[in-house]
Amino acid sequence: MEFTIDRDTFSRALQKIQGIVEKRNTMPILSNVLIEALEDRIELTATDLEVGMKSSYPTTVASQGKITVSAKKLYEIVKELPDETISFLTKANDYVEIRCGKAKFTIVGLSSEEFPYFPKVNEESFIRIESGLLADMIEKTSYAICFDETKYNLNGTFVKASEEDGRSILRMVATDGHRLSITQREFNGAVSPEMAKGVIFPKKGIFELKKMCEEESTQLSLGFLDNSAVIVKGNTVVVMRLVDGEFPDYTRVVPVANDRIVTVARDPFFHSLRRMSILSSEKFKGIKMDIQESGMVISSSNPELGEASEELDAVFAGDAISIRFNAKYLIDVLAVLDESSVALHLKDELSPAIVRPADGDGFTAVIMPMRL
Amino acid sequence: MEFTIDRDTFSRALQKIQGIVEKRNTMPILSNVLIEALEDRIELTATDLEVGMKSSYPTTVASQGKITVSAKKLYEIVKELPDETISFLTKANDYVEIRCGKAKFTIVGLSSEEFPYFPKVNEESFIRIESGLLADMIEKTSYAICFDETKYNLNGTFVKASEEDGRSILRMVATDGHRLSITQREFNGAVSPEMAKGVIFPKKGIFELKKMCEEESTQLSLGFLDNSAVIVKGNTVVVMRLVDGEFPDYTRVVPVANDRIVTVARDPFFHSLRRMSILSSEKFKGIKMDIQESGMVISSSNPELGEASEELDAVFAGDAISIRFNAKYLIDVLAVLDESSVALHLKDELSPAIVRPADGDGFTAVIMPMRL
Repeated sequence: MEFTIDRDTFSRALQKIQGIVEKRNTMPILSNVLIEALEDRIELTATDLEVGMKSSYPTTVASQGKITVSAKKLYEIVKELPDETISFLTKANDYVEIRCGKAKFTIVGLSSEEFPYFPKVNEESFIRIESGLLADMIEKTSYAICFDETKYNLNGTFVKASEEDGRSILRMVATDGHRLSITQREFNGAVSPEMAKGVIFPKKGIFELKKMCEEESTQLSLGFLDNSAVIVKGNTVVVMRLVDGEFPDYTRVVPVANDRIVTVARDPFFHSLRRMSILSSEKFKGIKMDIQESGMVISSSNPELGEASEELDAVFAGDAISIRFNAKYLIDVLAVLDESSVALHLKDELSPAIVRPADGDGFTAVIMPMRL
Repeated sequence: MEFTIDRDTFSRALQKIQGIVEKRNTMPILSNVLIEALEDRIELTATDLEVGMKSSYPTTVASQGKITVSAKKLYEIVKELPDETISFLTKANDYVEIRCGKAKFTIVGLSSEEFPYFPKVNEESFIRIESGLLADMIEKTSYAICFDETKYNLNGTFVKASEEDGRSILRMVATDGHRLSITQREFNGAVSPEMAKGVIFPKKGIFELKKMCEEESTQLSLGFLDNSAVIVKGNTVVVMRLVDGEFPDYTRVVPVANDRIVTVARDPFFHSLRRMSILSSEKFKGIKMDIQESGMVISSSNPELGEASEELDAVFAGDAISIRFNAKYLIDVLAVLDESSVALHLKDELSPAIVRPADGDGFTAVIMPMRL
């Protein structure tokens, strides 16, 4: 196998897969990238068996073939090469020779035979969706994904579509047990059976998908194959194994009787929470909110450091309430909201609270308060 | 004590001392900043007993006094405050009240009585020196400072001045035992007795001094007090305890009989070393240089990864030589050289090598080769 390719194309192609390859080195072949030279292009594939990515790049191929080499080392080398054409050639015993300018590298590869199978994708039954819409929905939910690996069914984002009044609605939900985020948006296209039932995208796949969606505004194809989700964008295919578990019934987590509604401007609220959390403990970040018709007071205290408090304008009609939260949970929600005004829906000091844009729907966050 | 100050001034002032305060918290008072309100200004002082910094800022003082509070927490708070005037007030039991907008912080302080003494400085006998000159000299030597704390006499930069042919010459030297860097520059001013003898500035002080010198181009005053160096720049005084030890006789380390001189363009050499070091081992970064009249070949190999080599144009007359170096040592030297062409002065494959600008003096690096 032998091909030439320009440095920048190869460097960008290798950068794209760095997040996919396995870091722990339990199976050496998974830290490698599969490079296949076909008639008029090369294809690069990386996978950790959970999330895989394959991209193709048109280039000049002198002789077809395939090989795998360390994705990390190859990227390090290509990044440092002078800005010229790179020639890439396989030698005996799975060695690879890379030449560029007057530099020559001979690196150890591994046979492509051991590389995991990457599915062939037929896009026919796929739905088409705007990358910008997906990027925004992932942004608004992914902060709540659970990172505790023992709760494997929460280590991802629940994705479900439904037909409502003749409109197709896409919904994403993530929760770590202490907080939950739901976002929904209308999309153009039909609802596939998998999407109607609901599936859990793994967190690594969700973050890779977010990167892809943010690159440029375009249309993606989304479909399912065996137990995996498949996303196609231009010359790139991403396959991710769906999380095999039940996602909790999020509809039952969203409280319906929270009738104390406080409306507050997002920016002052966000910055006040950041200030007040400085004096809360490193671990729990607890702050207290005292809400009355005259406004809101946010406060925190720490026996070692001192105490802080701040008044905030707020619109509220009802009985006064004092409630404690982990400031980080509120800050995370406010950080993904673009709206200038937010509404807190409270019941009492121990029941879950809702955060929503004051005007507009499509986003609901639920946060558990802290006990004293 | 009570004063008001604008947020940005206070925030910048507190940022400046974050590198000085003690991180290890062995003596709580050393993680605090001393704040003194005088008639028309406040003075902030921080020290870890090795390096101290005191700066003054004109502001409106309602009542004079002093207090110490956590430098880190105070900075975190001030950074997050809205961009308005801050009022700072001491209360009973060393509490401090900070108000800004509608936010109020009451934080625990410590009495200023326990704060270490900061010397009174009289600049009369100080020499004046350009900050740009110092910044450049520190840049060209500090990469070679030893970080092994058991070699305490190498944990800093040796600074010495001398009169040569009626000119005042400032010299800085740093070494970690494997490499050494010497730079010298002419400066305007007299040579003080301490500078004539030579003193060792501690590495933390050197890096603080570098930051100060890089801020803006101005004149500094440099002098000595007891066993410390004192630097005055505008409203800021830095005091650093000199390292109490003998610096090795660097003049004996610089070889004089290295008569194989290779001249090579800096940029291609620098980038080739970076490329070739990718395949050298993580720990030793060993590369080999084969030098002949026809040019130079840099190469590296690693049984696990493969091998690399690159030809480089070089001017050399003499017997061919093969020599191995830690690539990092060469890269560190080339990174601080601005000249377009460098000269390697070699003797044989085991003797120390010199790296200098091909034209021009004022800078000499000595590097030990690696044995096979």
